[in-house]
Amino acid sequence: MTVPQRLAALRAQMTAHHIDIYYIPTDDYHCSEYVGDFFKCRRWISGFTGSAGVVVVTQKEAGLWTDGRYFLQAADQLSGSTIHLYRMGEPGVPTVTEYLAMTLRDGQCLGFDGRTVTAAWVDELTRALGGKDVRLCTDVDLVGEIWTDRPAISCRPVWLLEETYAGKTRADKLCSLRYQLKSEHIDWLVLSTLDDIAWLLNIRGDDVAYNPVVLSYLMVSQNSIRLFIQPDALSVPVRDALAHDGVRCFPYEDITAHLSALTGCTVQLDRRSTSTALASALSESVTLVDAVSPTQLSKAVKNPTEIRNIREAHRADGAALVRFLHWLKQNIGRIPITEISAAECLEQFRKEQRHYLQPSFDPIAAYGSHSAVVHYSATPESNAELRPEGFLLLDTGGQYLEGTTDVTRTVALGPITDTMRRHYTAVLRGNLNLAAAVFRSGCTGVNLDVLARAPLWELGLDFNHGTGHGVGYLLSCHEGPNSFRWKISPNPSDNAVFQEGMVTSDEPGVYLTGQYGIRLENLLVCRKSRRTEFAQFLCFEPLTLVPFDRDAIDPSQMTAHELSLLNEYHARVFRELSPRLDENDRLWLEEQTRPISVF
Amino acid sequence: MTVPQRLAALRAQMTAHHIDIYYIPTDDYHCSEYVGDFFKCRRWISGFTGSAGVVVVTQKEAGLWTDGRYFLQAADQLSGSTIHLYRMGEPGVPTVTEYLAMTLRDGQCLGFDGRTVTAAWVDELTRALGGKDVRLCTDVDLVGEIWTDRPAISCRPVWLLEETYAGKTRADKLCSLRYQLKSEHIDWLVLSTLDDIAWLLNIRGDDVAYNPVVLSYLMVSQNSIRLFIQPDALSVPVRDALAHDGVRCFPYEDITAHLSALTGCTVQLDRRSTSTALASALSESVTLVDAVSPTQLSKAVKNPTEIRNIREAHRADGAALVRFLHWLKQNIGRIPITEISAAECLEQFRKEQRHYLQPSFDPIAAYGSHSAVVHYSATPESNAELRPEGFLLLDTGGQYLEGTTDVTRTVALGPITDTMRRHYTAVLRGNLNLAAAVFRSGCTGVNLDVLARAPLWELGLDFNHGTGHGVGYLLSCHEGPNSFRWKISPNPSDNAVFQEGMVTSDEPGVYLTGQYGIRLENLLVCRKSRRTEFAQFLCFEPLTLVPFDRDAIDPSQMTAHELSLLNEYHARVFRELSPRLDENDRLWLEEQTRPISVF
Repeated sequence: MTVPQRLAALRAQMTAHHIDIYYIPTDDYHCSEYVGDFFKCRRWISGFTGSAGVVVVTQKEAGLWTDGRYFLQAADQLSGSTIHLYRMGEPGVPTVTEYLAMTLRDGQCLGFDGRTVTAAWVDELTRALGGKDVRLCTDVDLVGEIWTDRPAISCRPVWLLEETYAGKTRADKLCSLRYQLKSEHIDWLVLSTLDDIAWLLNIRGDDVAYNPVVLSYLMVSQNSIRLFIQPDALSVPVRDALAHDGVRCFPYEDITAHLSALTGCTVQLDRRSTSTALASALSESVTLVDAVSPTQLSKAVKNPTEIRNIREAHRADGAALVRFLHWLKQNIGRIPITEISAAECLEQFRKEQRHYLQPSFDPIAAYGSHSAVVHYSATPESNAELRPEGFLLLDTGGQYLEGTTDVTRTVALGPITDTMRRHYTAVLRGNLNLAAAVFRSGCTGVNLDVLARAPLWELGLDFNHGTGHGVGYLLSCHEGPNSFRWKISPNPSDNAVFQEGMVTSDEPGVYLTGQYGIRLENLLVCRKSRRTEFAQFLCFEPLTLVPFDRDAIDPSQMTAHELSLLNEYHARVFRELSPRLDENDRLWLEEQTRPISVF
Repeated sequence: MTVPQRLAALRAQMTAHHIDIYYIPTDDYHCSEYVGDFFKCRRWISGFTGSAGVVVVTQKEAGLWTDGRYFLQAADQLSGSTIHLYRMGEPGVPTVTEYLAMTLRDGQCLGFDGRTVTAAWVDELTRALGGKDVRLCTDVDLVGEIWTDRPAISCRPVWLLEETYAGKTRADKLCSLRYQLKSEHIDWLVLSTLDDIAWLLNIRGDDVAYNPVVLSYLMVSQNSIRLFIQPDALSVPVRDALAHDGVRCFPYEDITAHLSALTGCTVQLDRRSTSTALASALSESVTLVDAVSPTQLSKAVKNPTEIRNIREAHRADGAALVRFLHWLKQNIGRIPITEISAAECLEQFRKEQRHYLQPSFDPIAAYGSHSAVVHYSATPESNAELRPEGFLLLDTGGQYLEGTTDVTRTVALGPITDTMRRHYTAVLRGNLNLAAAVFRSGCTGVNLDVLARAPLWELGLDFNHGTGHGVGYLLSCHEGPNSFRWKISPNPSDNAVFQEGMVTSDEPGVYLTGQYGIRLENLLVCRKSRRTEFAQFLCFEPLTLVPFDRDAIDPSQMTAHELSLLNEYHARVFRELSPRLDENDRLWLEEQTRPISVF
């Protein structure tokens, strides 16, 4: 079936259900960033494979909304689909709610699968519709009705993350969560975000690509913990271990019935990450507290064991990267290498590391003009052959028992122009300056983002994505609430204050459409610096241990301070990685990390 | 009457009115930062003379809440008053609403003058009180009842600001305001903030210290403009000029009756800057739009004439400052100089400038340990004799027909320690780096504040006030919505995006209690920088033209870039001021502004 044929089939179902506009988000039932194949309705209906976007279908039109990372890719993949691309954030482009509010007429019906849409989005939509007489039909899955070869819902085995990796027992985590709930007078906490559940229960699975989570819901009170999960995912030992800590298991679908049965109590759930189907199941007699789960912050602040492990994960990951970079620099122009084969080679080197499990996201290996596509994903059709010139951008990461890595390096495969070198150096300066920040406690990423962007802004450059995101522990590669970005979120809980133990990426970039892209990404852990009479100060320390490409650096554009930051970082990379490298790679790394003289 | 006697008299009135707690803010009826003598109830009852603070009185206790600028001063002035000092923002200190919510019991009555309290504050209080059965008595002025020698309400003559200064006629301003109101479907805009009214009508007066505004209210619709003002303040020519543009005048007190008479229309007022007495006057049939007046942004974005004038005001102001600084450096240790006489001398030099009207705020001349008090105000008792050593901090400003100035310099009067020099240099670096920012459009002061603080944070230092505030045109020295600060305001309209033409102060500092304080303040105008394919970029340009004290600078702690910023600034100061100085002062300025060599 072509995309136009799928749209035609969907429109027929819309007519049958008396639905005028049908809305298809990317989400699964848990607001996951990546979703299992069963949930890929938006991708199936549109052909657009990016990780973010929503489709709206009327009888006459169809539109896809996506963000700056995907403008080029979406334009390409939608070609011939009859679906119009709405570039989110561009001047004059309506948001999807604005579009719905403009397009829906009195008496019409908007349909969507209420399990795949957050309660907060329905609130926002209702506000946007003003007093319009629009009916919402939320208990339908029209794509499901026409998607004949839809994959089954994932049901992979759950496994237990040992305390030596998690750093804290399930019982300890539940105890401190219950203490928090008690002090806030919450009778029940309802969790549907998979990383929160996996973190809290020290369980992992394989139900979502890249994120080792388990399809499930959780309800926690002072004397009961109910896990809603597919029974086949649980082995007897796992079930016993959970039961030992008071976790009772119920079938995945039963969550709605359990929520409906609550009466006269105070229930906390986050309408921004809970589906409208779940939120609507609560009875009128329940007092709702709409707030971010306390697990979000507890999960973001890594404990000392986690940090020790994460450092180990980055040493392993760095050793794999160094082997790969050396191999690449040695072999480019000598043997055939493509974007895909390069990524496969790196994956091979990672697989040889102890406790490596899988990639932490869809690897990006983007050569030449492909690197200007922020979230490029090579396909057999697009797969470019690497030549000994220009930039290769590599954004990859791994899941280890010791944590999650996410690293981007841009590599000069041969000659590059002075402009390319100037741009690389500006991105590097931004990366180094942000990592070197010393700041008072209370600051958020909004306060510090300028440190990464200033060297680019000086040159009239900028990049159309955040400067950094929080990173989970053997969980999501994108994990809130910490981040670096310059836009102030209207939601105060997004502007998270940095705390010791938070892990955040530092990844400025430059993208010149049709030419090349540069991104340099290290993960940073937040640490305490000194406390003075004025404030407690904090700082960052890079976790990622991979050299920057000295072939692409112009030291004359760096200040003495920036050069010393680079030299210190490179010295540390060599010190920490050299014991793990064979003679050949060690000599190469020594050369790559030797100090650049400060005038 | 001593403060304890005044409190006793107030408590007797409270008993007579069946009021359990009485609340006395600093505000006049217009949310002015500075208030006329008639309105200084909080000062009269407490003896605390700072510009910000509220007093709460119960039968047993009395408390003053004020912010970090005034902790030292308030502690001093409250000594012996029986009033407890609540240091706002310090850990464990309740906010005043938290205190009221804790202290008020069911069935009790809280009293205050509803004309001096914003509607938003009453909303906040109501939320804090939860369901408590507390009565509000808002139509009393108990301090007024006992303040026998209370000054009369000010009624100074109104004068017209010519277009050559205002840059835009009253008619033009009213026309674009009405266009904005029409597009927002607002029938009436109610203004009670005095700077908005003065700006919109191109009028000035003298009813508030330092801010040349006119006690008045304004109502604007598509076919009516009603100015509520004391009739005696208006001369016939002024009344005629206003009438010519359709402004009808009514007695000051009549605003309430006019508001009560509105029915069935849409009225915009800003509950955060409008008194609860006014807001409550609106009938139920009115649709209220609670939003910041569009005049706020129009006023903040200075027009080209205003900017040209402001540059002129700063040249005049700079010439006065240079004369003063030269005089001070020459005479310190030779003739007796005190904090007060120094400020008077500077005021004298300002008075000799063309079109100088008055100070733009209470001048601060703080010597030695006094300079650690952020908003120190010398009194005959505290007035220190200046000695040829240590720091004098001078924060002063002027109102000129060409605009409002506000400048702080810290001057080494003789030997200073290496630490003092290091601290001065760090503050200077922060000032220079913020002023040199190049940033994409869309940024707010929250994004840029770190540029001023980073050199201090590196040393474990910080300062307990914002880095900068907007400045009016021959109006308030503190004017929103633009600012530099690191804390994200929960109110999105406080996080103003910078626009070309906004004027903002840049004033980092360091304060060591009991030792010394340093603050260096320039006003910056926001200008367009280049537009590239990535964004429109903006930058700042210093308006203030006063040399920094090279006796206090340690160039070895500055980067080459920072030294070149300093040298460029100093070269401009000399270029622009030298034509206005006599030979003696010119030679001195030349010496002060000669380049510091970049290694």
